Amino acid sequence: MPHGGDLADAARLAAPPEDGWLDLSTGINPHAYPAAIPPEALTRLPQRSRLNALLAAARTAYAVPPGAGIVAAPGTQAIIQWLPRLVPAERVTVVGPTYAEHAAAWHPHAATAEADELPAEGLAVVVNPNNPTGRVHAPGTLRAAATRDAPDGVALIVDEAFGDLAPEASIAGAPGTLVLKSFGKFFGLPGVRLGFAIGAPDVMGRLSAALGSWAVSGPAIEIGAAALADAAWIATMRRQLADERAALDAVLGAAGLTVIGGTDLFRLVECRDAAGLHRALARHGIWTRRFEHAPRWLRIGLPGAALPRLAAALEAVTHASIATRTPS
Amino acid sequence: MPHGGDLADAARLAAPPEDGWLDLSTGINPHAYPAAIPPEALTRLPQRSRLNALLAAARTAYAVPPGAGIVAAPGTQAIIQWLPRLVPAERVTVVGPTYAEHAAAWHPHAATAEADELPAEGLAVVVNPNNPTGRVHAPGTLRAAATRDAPDGVALIVDEAFGDLAPEASIAGAPGTLVLKSFGKFFGLPGVRLGFAIGAPDVMGRLSAALGSWAVSGPAIEIGAAALADAAWIATMRRQLADERAALDAVLGAAGLTVIGGTDLFRLVECRDAAGLHRALARHGIWTRRFEHAPRWLRIGLPGAALPRLAAALEAVTHASIATRTPS
Repeated sequence: MPHGGDLADAARLAAPPEDGWLDLSTGINPHAYPAAIPPEALTRLPQRSRLNALLAAARTAYAVPPGAGIVAAPGTQAIIQWLPRLVPAERVTVVGPTYAEHAAAWHPHAATAEADELPAEGLAVVVNPNNPTGRVHAPGTLRAAATRDAPDGVALIVDEAFGDLAPEASIAGAPGTLVLKSFGKFFGLPGVRLGFAIGAPDVMGRLSAALGSWAVSGPAIEIGAAALADAAWIATMRRQLADERAALDAVLGAAGLTVIGGTDLFRLVECRDAAGLHRALARHGIWTRRFEHAPRWLRIGLPGAALPRLAAALEAVTHASIATRTPS
Repeated sequence: MPHGGDLADAARLAAPPEDGWLDLSTGINPHAYPAAIPPEALTRLPQRSRLNALLAAARTAYAVPPGAGIVAAPGTQAIIQWLPRLVPAERVTVVGPTYAEHAAAWHPHAATAEADELPAEGLAVVVNPNNPTGRVHAPGTLRAAATRDAPDGVALIVDEAFGDLAPEASIAGAPGTLVLKSFGKFFGLPGVRLGFAIGAPDVMGRLSAALGSWAVSGPAIEIGAAALADAAWIATMRRQLADERAALDAVLGAAGLTVIGGTDLFRLVECRDAAGLHRALARHGIWTRRFEHAPRWLRIGLPGAALPRLAAALEAVTHASIATRTPS
């Protein structure tokens, strides 16, 4: 399955640039949380007391209501892998287009379909805000959908991987939901592998038992506990990312690209020939993400300090007339 | 399920000592591999090229034959959690007493029994060398058992968690086997969470698909790739641990304790009142592992530089007549 973030894919398309690839193929914060790993986090088995500190910090950061359970995992992908074995469902509707791993995980276990809107019945999966479109479902709509169909179980899986950018849209802990939270994107540390599930205590108990002992590494526990408790860093970073997103939009607009969606960590642009723009940027050492199912879409991650490099490459590419404004 | 290695358990039994707990409740090398984590291991998604470097180093270190597959996971426990979903079995025999997570994982999915010896039929699980007894099954016996019953599938799961201490006993890649390798114990870095499965390519493919993308963290990939390729460190450490094990045995013998098994990373001693000795050592700030199913057993990990502290505590405890030699 194609994903952003692996430069082996970039190297197949173009020679590695002298100053290194600028990887904008993901939605990962270029300003990583300053991680510190105490030696004991490596030399000891992960301690329950430290895991509890991580979960307490996550509860506060994600505003989890007291009645809901929370489980930590080595990345939300590890949770996505287990869910079809733990949540009974005959039919699953994935609201899309979206992150392709959800449908892939459910496909062998249930009748799986993609739809533009939330289904009237059956288990639904929605990424909110969505990747790559940035579409945000209103919390009220999701809450209603989650309780309509399966009052005693899980009716709605909400992947809030980019939820740190839109905390007001979170429905973590709402009845009938199982909410996923990704640590690595907002905190810029995806290599750490840390994610969370939030939901009814019985479902969380099954998930915790399935993941087993010491599921989360010592470094992930220590870095996560510190970062999620750092409310000042979180608030400052949200404002900084919003400012940088506005600056990125100005650069993209100046290059004649139409931004049709995204979050403060990535933008989705539309252009006549996204594959051509993707290749042209790769020749300038910039790796972006295109989508087989949408030949006019290109996802461009926030470049941080490398915005001038992106701007220069886009200007060169635009002059070569590869990127052109979509006709209205 | 009780395990060694969590000092919250120790704190329930005795006040934390002024100079910190001496945790001998596991079989983890006190001389950790000098770990280095490049920043990109945290700030990037785990790269396939680096995962491939890790797997290549593991193949060499574990002498995996070319025809066998190998999969990396965030600890062997994560693999143990998945196996009952991936390997079809109606009956499972765990050769024991041994690490309790195997039987616990299989119990909900198959008729699970514990036996002293390898069974004549059905799927078997054996820990080799065994934890905590140190019993080593001859490779020839295991190879025969693995091919006798299930020529086309997995007949024998061999957990070689302590196999680095007895590489000559490894049957990694043998037909009919699925072999588990634990990184953290020998390299003294259990917080990293890294383990491997080795077996037939089709079974390894199913396991890899179940674990999903980015299962192993960037730090685990980088530390594992460096450590597993460091043949000089591995060879030196094997000799050092053997020497330290002999010195530990002398201390245990001087305290009147009978060593009935173990590996170079831990010793299993027998005494009349293991619970009493466990409590007495805890009052001296030393945390050991006892077993509900064997009231005369105590497992004591290699103390490294803290051997004099253990010797002093044992001498004080022996004078108090809590530990006494088992009558022959």
